[in-house]
Amino acid sequence: MALIVQKYGGDALGDKGKGKSRKANDPLFGAQFIPEKYKKIAEIVKRSRGQGHQVVVTVSAMGDATDRMLAMAKSLMPEPPARELDMLMSTGEQQSIALMALALEAAGVPARSLTGLQVGILTENIFGKARIREISTEKLSTALDEGRTPVVAGFQGTTEDSELTTLGRGGSDITAVALAAAINADICEFYKDVDGIFTTDPRICPTARKIERISYDEMLELASLGAGVLQSRSVEFAKNYGVTLHVRSYLHDEPGTFVVPEEPEMEDVVVSGVAFNRGEAKIALLEVPDRPGIAAEVFGRLGAAGIVVDMIIQDIAREDDLNDITFTVSHSDYEKALELAEGLRQDLKAGRVIGDPSIAKVSAVGVGMRSHAEVASRMFKALGDAGINIQMISTSEIKISCVIDEKQLEDAVRAIHKAFESDKRFVGNES
Amino acid sequence: MALIVQKYGGDALGDKGKGKSRKANDPLFGAQFIPEKYKKIAEIVKRSRGQGHQVVVTVSAMGDATDRMLAMAKSLMPEPPARELDMLMSTGEQQSIALMALALEAAGVPARSLTGLQVGILTENIFGKARIREISTEKLSTALDEGRTPVVAGFQGTTEDSELTTLGRGGSDITAVALAAAINADICEFYKDVDGIFTTDPRICPTARKIERISYDEMLELASLGAGVLQSRSVEFAKNYGVTLHVRSYLHDEPGTFVVPEEPEMEDVVVSGVAFNRGEAKIALLEVPDRPGIAAEVFGRLGAAGIVVDMIIQDIAREDDLNDITFTVSHSDYEKALELAEGLRQDLKAGRVIGDPSIAKVSAVGVGMRSHAEVASRMFKALGDAGINIQMISTSEIKISCVIDEKQLEDAVRAIHKAFESDKRFVGNES
Repeated sequence: MALIVQKYGGDALGDKGKGKSRKANDPLFGAQFIPEKYKKIAEIVKRSRGQGHQVVVTVSAMGDATDRMLAMAKSLMPEPPARELDMLMSTGEQQSIALMALALEAAGVPARSLTGLQVGILTENIFGKARIREISTEKLSTALDEGRTPVVAGFQGTTEDSELTTLGRGGSDITAVALAAAINADICEFYKDVDGIFTTDPRICPTARKIERISYDEMLELASLGAGVLQSRSVEFAKNYGVTLHVRSYLHDEPGTFVVPEEPEMEDVVVSGVAFNRGEAKIALLEVPDRPGIAAEVFGRLGAAGIVVDMIIQDIAREDDLNDITFTVSHSDYEKALELAEGLRQDLKAGRVIGDPSIAKVSAVGVGMRSHAEVASRMFKALGDAGINIQMISTSEIKISCVIDEKQLEDAVRAIHKAFESDKRFVGNES
Repeated sequence: MALIVQKYGGDALGDKGKGKSRKANDPLFGAQFIPEKYKKIAEIVKRSRGQGHQVVVTVSAMGDATDRMLAMAKSLMPEPPARELDMLMSTGEQQSIALMALALEAAGVPARSLTGLQVGILTENIFGKARIREISTEKLSTALDEGRTPVVAGFQGTTEDSELTTLGRGGSDITAVALAAAINADICEFYKDVDGIFTTDPRICPTARKIERISYDEMLELASLGAGVLQSRSVEFAKNYGVTLHVRSYLHDEPGTFVVPEEPEMEDVVVSGVAFNRGEAKIALLEVPDRPGIAAEVFGRLGAAGIVVDMIIQDIAREDDLNDITFTVSHSDYEKALELAEGLRQDLKAGRVIGDPSIAKVSAVGVGMRSHAEVASRMFKALGDAGINIQMISTSEIKISCVIDEKQLEDAVRAIHKAFESDKRFVGNES
């Protein structure tokens, strides 16, 4: 018998509307409420309990409820204060827990809905992105002892003064992991509309395979693959508290991907997956006079403007004491970053600014890289053989990333995946 | 400068949908959210504050949100447990307070939304229809001292164990009156889509006039006129705590109707208003052997079946020791009551059961009746002159009710209204 936290997201509970659902224009139910989805989840919970497990359920707001409420708020006030937004937003999860508890009770599963405040998910006194300080386990234990399945509102917490807070994007995943850590659960399951984490996006690469086990660090580096699947903050949280995660489908009972502490045999796997980011842009500030503090000046200004810089490469090998500084930003920040770079060029008396709004990043990830020196060259060769020019390279302990022309991204993903998929140690193989 | 509690109901905040609204089929906003309505209320609050008043706002769920959520719950479980229903329902008011606070802030009015739990509206530990035990005034006072307008969620409370409760039908009105009593407000204003309480329904009787001042007891007896306007429980609450109510329109700034403790000059008013109930039904159990306990047996069975009986008349003057027992029920209970009556007829060895599903009740209400003996005869004469047969009569200290054929109801209302409207002491006159 295990103690399991099960997290169900907005897509498991409802529909995003936008014409996808039969009920999208039903004035009674709105776009997001689909009772069959609640009933489906109740069956999964019932099955788990039938296997002898104790289950704690945590849920997000259904469908696009959060976006709908944000739109309501903005129609009244373009920049609504975070406190009132949290007051509004937290109703989404509260509706979900009540309806989920009803679906469970209807399926014969004794349940009890609990808001963040009722559980005692104490957070910092910050609205919109509060961090959890402490979770009380009393109400959860009482419900479990009574044979009930607690249904906890994700995403929300409370301050000591009973102010309602939310945990920011991905907050429901954080709630799930934090609950699992607090009650010392055996596992924290995330029920999704995908089968698990894949070695790369199967829509691009048909030979992509489901990963059976992956380490927290690899999962973090594969964030782009898992972006819609598992939020980075919750993976970090799980790593810090040693919570085993299981990303699986709510559409069937097959196991998905376990995200676990690094295991010795994982080193045998050279590459766990091939991640990628579209929609990046590259800016190069060329012929910058080489003097201390230049990089701080450049990235200080970008940071002050709220622009998140991803990759940075500085070529310090020029003979004329002039540097080239190249960096990547998200495509949406491109124009703004280009403008700032032009200002920097003038102030720093640099030579030229060049930009390219059409690049992409492709990365090979795997803890096995630490002990397998040939990974980089295999990756570069794969790209070269496919006729893909590498514009920038950046490496970390378990990741190698290349910036390439956006048009060649899919070819690049397939080429790299192919280069490693035949490897006996490639994830998904029997090893 | 006054301290004012202002209550805005679902119709002031949103739309009931059902095709009435432009946005009824908008998948983003759903049927019920109309930002202009929030902005309109913000202007009223701003105007009150501009007149130097301190304002506490309390709101219902918008439009038909409560009905929508109930339908959601029932689609999962036909008889949902009250605890989970309260968990679900209380989100309606929580959304309203957040959005209302945003609308106020956007209009330049510092505001702070507060849930029932946050204010400290402590209730009994009963779900679905909890009674308020105590209201803490600390958070309200703090907000007011800071120059903020607290926006309190109506309809909801909390137990000492942080369980969320609701106050039952009309609960938002109760919240308003209870808040007014707790903070010792000068007045409790109810903003409606009507101008106030009328001497009778203007749709039936064009000479109906707005009542300027009315006593709590008269208001309670006129419940049928005020049914959509002011809930009886809140009037009783106001009476018990001496809270002055002001029912007024959110569409303009004219005063509406004040509901106040009885004033000596009110006795001069013979009839304050003419109330009526459609949709009643009459059942007569004829030739019932006269013995003690018969009435208890009859109405005990009806009560046990959940049937609310309105009027009861027992004719004890028959020479043959047989009684006729006649009573009225709501039309929706007619078939069930008729069936029970048939069972009673057999068990009690009574003669016959007759029923009439097409009756109505018309009532004249006024504290002045206590000192004006001729009211009843004037009313009966008015009905008789209009060719209307009176089937049953029932009187209380300040009300005379007659049961008549439903088809003649509108004629009856007009006849009675006409009989008293020329009276100098009739409400609405300068007296």
